[in-house]
Amino acid sequence: MTRRLDEIAWEGFNKLTPAEKTPYLVENGRPVHVLFARQFDRLQLDSLGELATQVRFIAKTEDGMAFLRGLLPHKRVMLYFSQPSTRTFLSFCTACEILGMSIGEVRDSATSSEFKGESREDSVRTFSSYFDLIVMRSEIGGLAERMAWVLSNTDRPVPIINAGSGKDQHPTQALLDIYTLQRSFEERGGIDGKTIVFIGDLARGRTVRSLASLLTNYKDVKQCFVAPRPLQIGDDVLGMLRAAGVEYELSDDFESAIPAADAIYMTRVQDEWDSRKGDSGKIDISRYCFTVGHLAKLKKHAVIMHPFPRRTEISPDVDCDPRAVYWRQMRNGMWIRAALIATIFDRDDQIRRYHQSTYN
Amino acid sequence: MTRRLDEIAWEGFNKLTPAEKTPYLVENGRPVHVLFARQFDRLQLDSLGELATQVRFIAKTEDGMAFLRGLLPHKRVMLYFSQPSTRTFLSFCTACEILGMSIGEVRDSATSSEFKGESREDSVRTFSSYFDLIVMRSEIGGLAERMAWVLSNTDRPVPIINAGSGKDQHPTQALLDIYTLQRSFEERGGIDGKTIVFIGDLARGRTVRSLASLLTNYKDVKQCFVAPRPLQIGDDVLGMLRAAGVEYELSDDFESAIPAADAIYMTRVQDEWDSRKGDSGKIDISRYCFTVGHLAKLKKHAVIMHPFPRRTEISPDVDCDPRAVYWRQMRNGMWIRAALIATIFDRDDQIRRYHQSTYN
Amino acid sequence: MTRRLDEIAWEGFNKLTPAEKTPYLVENGRPVHVLFARQFDRLQLDSLGELATQVRFIAKTEDGMAFLRGLLPHKRVMLYFSQPSTRTFLSFCTACEILGMSIGEVRDSATSSEFKGESREDSVRTFSSYFDLIVMRSEIGGLAERMAWVLSNTDRPVPIINAGSGKDQHPTQALLDIYTLQRSFEERGGIDGKTIVFIGDLARGRTVRSLASLLTNYKDVKQCFVAPRPLQIGDDVLGMLRAAGVEYELSDDFESAIPAADAIYMTRVQDEWDSRKGDSGKIDISRYCFTVGHLAKLKKHAVIMHPFPRRTEISPDVDCDPRAVYWRQMRNGMWIRAALIATIFDRDDQIRRYHQSTYN
Repeated sequence: MTRRLDEIAWEGFNKLTPAEKTPYLVENGRPVHVLFARQFDRLQLDSLGELATQVRFIAKTEDGMAFLRGLLPHKRVMLYFSQPSTRTFLSFCTACEILGMSIGEVRDSATSSEFKGESREDSVRTFSSYFDLIVMRSEIGGLAERMAWVLSNTDRPVPIINAGSGKDQHPTQALLDIYTLQRSFEERGGIDGKTIVFIGDLARGRTVRSLASLLTNYKDVKQCFVAPRPLQIGDDVLGMLRAAGVEYELSDDFESAIPAADAIYMTRVQDEWDSRKGDSGKIDISRYCFTVGHLAKLKKHAVIMHPFPRRTEISPDVDCDPRAVYWRQMRNGMWIRAALIATIFDRDDQIRRYHQSTYN
Repeated sequence: MTRRLDEIAWEGFNKLTPAEKTPYLVENGRPVHVLFARQFDRLQLDSLGELATQVRFIAKTEDGMAFLRGLLPHKRVMLYFSQPSTRTFLSFCTACEILGMSIGEVRDSATSSEFKGESREDSVRTFSSYFDLIVMRSEIGGLAERMAWVLSNTDRPVPIINAGSGKDQHPTQALLDIYTLQRSFEERGGIDGKTIVFIGDLARGRTVRSLASLLTNYKDVKQCFVAPRPLQIGDDVLGMLRAAGVEYELSDDFESAIPAADAIYMTRVQDEWDSRKGDSGKIDISRYCFTVGHLAKLKKHAVIMHPFPRRTEISPDVDCDPRAVYWRQMRNGMWIRAALIATIFDRDDQIRRYHQSTYN
Repeated sequence: MTRRLDEIAWEGFNKLTPAEKTPYLVENGRPVHVLFARQFDRLQLDSLGELATQVRFIAKTEDGMAFLRGLLPHKRVMLYFSQPSTRTFLSFCTACEILGMSIGEVRDSATSSEFKGESREDSVRTFSSYFDLIVMRSEIGGLAERMAWVLSNTDRPVPIINAGSGKDQHPTQALLDIYTLQRSFEERGGIDGKTIVFIGDLARGRTVRSLASLLTNYKDVKQCFVAPRPLQIGDDVLGMLRAAGVEYELSDDFESAIPAADAIYMTRVQDEWDSRKGDSGKIDISRYCFTVGHLAKLKKHAVIMHPFPRRTEISPDVDCDPRAVYWRQMRNGMWIRAALIATIFDRDDQIRRYHQSTYN
């Protein structure tokens, strides 16, 4: 049942569980705002993945590119990134350009009015005055949710896409990870029944949290969390998995976890979140790095993923192994974001029709 | 009578009064450069306001947006903002995108050649080599005028729009304020005869100075300046009002000023101009803030304006009152700037014809 | 003979001379990557100059601009400038806009992932995931070459244009300088047989090094290097000139060098490369500045050039002399870069046909 964000007080909305919030974020099967990974059910994930693949194919020709650019030339997007990012920023940027949108950006709060004492609410409401979509990344947990609620209560309730907030959520990263898994397993029965192994800093990687929660949409997926003790996955995630009846395993032994994996999801130490600078430098992570030597232990059809940026977690020598899909994963982010934005603006059917008429 | 900026020496031009400068800034009724508010007469203000409304209506449809984007796709604009700004920057940016222009920006002099010792004259002349319009904002008073004169004496005399210079001038802010007043009073006889009350830091708010001077184009407008003594409006503005025969009033009592107002123009303390950092923090401005309690004293059809960003001058609770027009005022900035740029490039007639054929 | 960069190891490629590297950078007569000035031979220089002139003429009409914008709307360019620049950045930016490309930019490494410990290889490979062309400027000598080699060994071997690397190479600056000379001498027999005088900081100006080397493509050109001793041109350049059989002269006497010059190429002191900050401030360069007084000594058809930014090397009073072509030189950068990019993407023939059908 659809509900409307302007019919509930912020305090009331804020207290809801993700499952209870979701009806407020969907209208006629389309996302109104994209705030957290769990708002997507399997039907939506399948549909987005299929659409992303169609966009990817259409973009292979100049005619197809021209068709895509003609979809949203009348729409303007604000990329509001108060936290540094290359990949997420650039992939949103290109996704929007593929759809023909005009792009504005605020990346450095020093060039903006915040130094003059403006509230974030006023800043975001300002963006909504000039733009039709706000993509925001912030170090403040829950800010995107708050802003979505604020805007929904104005006469310019433009959609908000959370491009990473706090330590918590990064829903479009989870979407691109799911899409990468969908593509990787498409000829071997899809994601159902696979074993996904997460390695590294699982305590603070919001991409891991978001993906772990999205994977609960699939049947018989086993999740393994391999990390040095201080960086192991949080109890809240494990509680969520138990509640969803998902099988999981904890370990601190990287090498033994490799053979069973259908996908290995490497992560870097997120030391920007250290409560005291340098704290995580004391943890020995050298045993959680993927090197050429590990390739022999890996299943023939398994894939190695990484949300990037990487440091030493994966040796560059691994890059040329066909199971290293992290560069393709990066491009998937562009396609799935284009699919998502097209869906928000009700252009998905046009894409499907164009694809059908061209490729069938 | 039209004059040409390349027929007068800088020293000569610089000494002229605004009224004497104006003929150098107009050609065939169109602005060549937009440097200060007073260069616009009532005829131009009416015409720009009407055009902005037409652009606003045309932009409501996808076809209309496509028409507008087709107006200036061959023109490139440089947004040269060496002083921070969100709103002015973004509204110029979107105004230019609406007209289909390509946009370049220099916002942070650290990424530019200025650190290599280049003069501002050479920087701006460089921009004129690559762009067809320069929109500039600077902390240096008079810089836009100087640059307009410099460019007019080269073989690439591209137009300059002053987007805020020094403590002095911010003409397009004045245009959007006038346009907001035009729209607010359009069913009650227009701006003539109204009482406009300015509140806050009137000493240093260049928006107030620019608007006060533009309002002299209207009949029987009363201007009230309400501020703590150290932040009261400058004598030069009062002298200008006296010379124009305009009725005005000075006061430091905010509450008593509310009932007579047709428009209340709130401003924040511009402490970035403090000669000693923190000086204006010593002034008690708590009595110059608009709260929900004040709404009862306000006329039924009066409007509350604010150039933004705001701090505490207006409580966010006031936002949902229909007389709070400051968010609409912000969007007006985008429309009036689009109208202005279309006029500079001689596209106003095309807009009028399209509007007439579509809406009549 | 064409060779492919993915068929040679980096260590092997890196050891080659420019002449030996060139076959790896060309395919079917078109540049695959643009890394150093010497990769261009005279045939290519003539062809690029001719194409730049055609682009320049076509861009004079709105129809022509629309034609040019239609050439590469499906291509996206990343402008990756980790070293500050105004002119080079803006002229690439406008060149790409002229061709209808979408533009992404990373100018400040603080907003990017580099602070998270990502390698430059990974950064550039990331750009190649989202963009079809990478224009990069870096303080690191040889970085563009390294990145071109890296990308050529991936499945996204997008072209790289070196927009300045280290103290060493700035090939598109050399192209625009050559184009300026071509235009300046087009009615007097072209570049062959002319005397080019370089003035200023020749030790560290990569524009001088690049241009000196490109000039070896022309017959009977004499090169004079006039600088205070510590800033005189490097022995490696002189060795290259001797090897090419080019006549050259060294001097520290600016005034006596003027009368013989067909082109005077002024440069500023590049003190950002001082090994100890302030070192070059101790050198008296006042005798290497071009003032109005020098104009009388200059040949009637000679030209004065400067790669900009300038400090005091050329008095602004000189700007209005018709022999001062440095502002035109700046715009030439836009045209030659547009011609270069169109050539890389195989659009040069379309431009030639359009030009012929329109102007013949």
